[in-house]
Amino acid sequence: MSRGEAIVLFVHGARDARWAEPFLRLRERVAAKAPQSIVEIAFLDHMSPNLAKVARQLSERGVTHIRVVPMFFGRGGHLRDDFPQQLDAACAAAPGVAFEVTEAAGESDAVLEALAAFALDAPGSSK
Amino acid sequence: MSRGEAIVLFVHGARDARWAEPFLRLRERVAAKAPQSIVEIAFLDHMSPNLAKVARQLSERGVTHIRVVPMFFGRGGHLRDDFPQQLDAACAAAPGVAFEVTEAAGESDAVLEALAAFALDAPGSSK
Repeated sequence: MSRGEAIVLFVHGARDARWAEPFLRLRERVAAKAPQSIVEIAFLDHMSPNLAKVARQLSERGVTHIRVVPMFFGRGGHLRDDFPQQLDAACAAAPGVAFEVTEAAGESDAVLEALAAFALDAPGSSK
Repeated sequence: MSRGEAIVLFVHGARDARWAEPFLRLRERVAAKAPQSIVEIAFLDHMSPNLAKVARQLSERGVTHIRVVPMFFGRGGHLRDDFPQQLDAACAAAPGVAFEVTEAAGESDAVLEALAAFALDAPGSSK
């Protein structure tokens, strides 16, 4: 990827600011693996910026290709209904930009494998 | 683990039944890796069974140790507030059972690594 390309992690958002912490760490990891790309986070709800704002800002920085990665486990109403609407808004907000969209992270076998390993091996504390 | 032990994947839930599909696949994976354990899913909201019901049913099946694994990315109000309440209810519903709780999946380095790889490598489709 050239610097004209960006990866946007599309996440749910929450009222508690601490909720976003793992995604900040995730952004750092992705950025470390793709130093030639800009990596941003966009929030579906509760937090900002939303996808349209991120897309517009990236466009203003010269980005011409945005890869949107939904960091969701399952495909419910948020991904089936809200996400397409927000993606349309993002396209409208950044008309010169090409958008690419992946499936949801939870649909990935490799992600499920990591989650399964976590379920078995993560340290637990007694309740 | 003996058959007296269970792993419960604690997930958010959604109005759309299809949302749960990745978690059904995840349960199969975990069960395949831990054939001596019972593996169940409990929902925080929107779907059933909830954690207390799962715990009671497991207790009735002779389970004496339940490992609860929160399948959440971030720790917002659901994990900081709702989950402890539901865990208390589960303990009350299964008084003879020892409970063990892991951190949230999104706090795991290995899970974040899998998500980062997904963000970079997952096939994308043009929007």
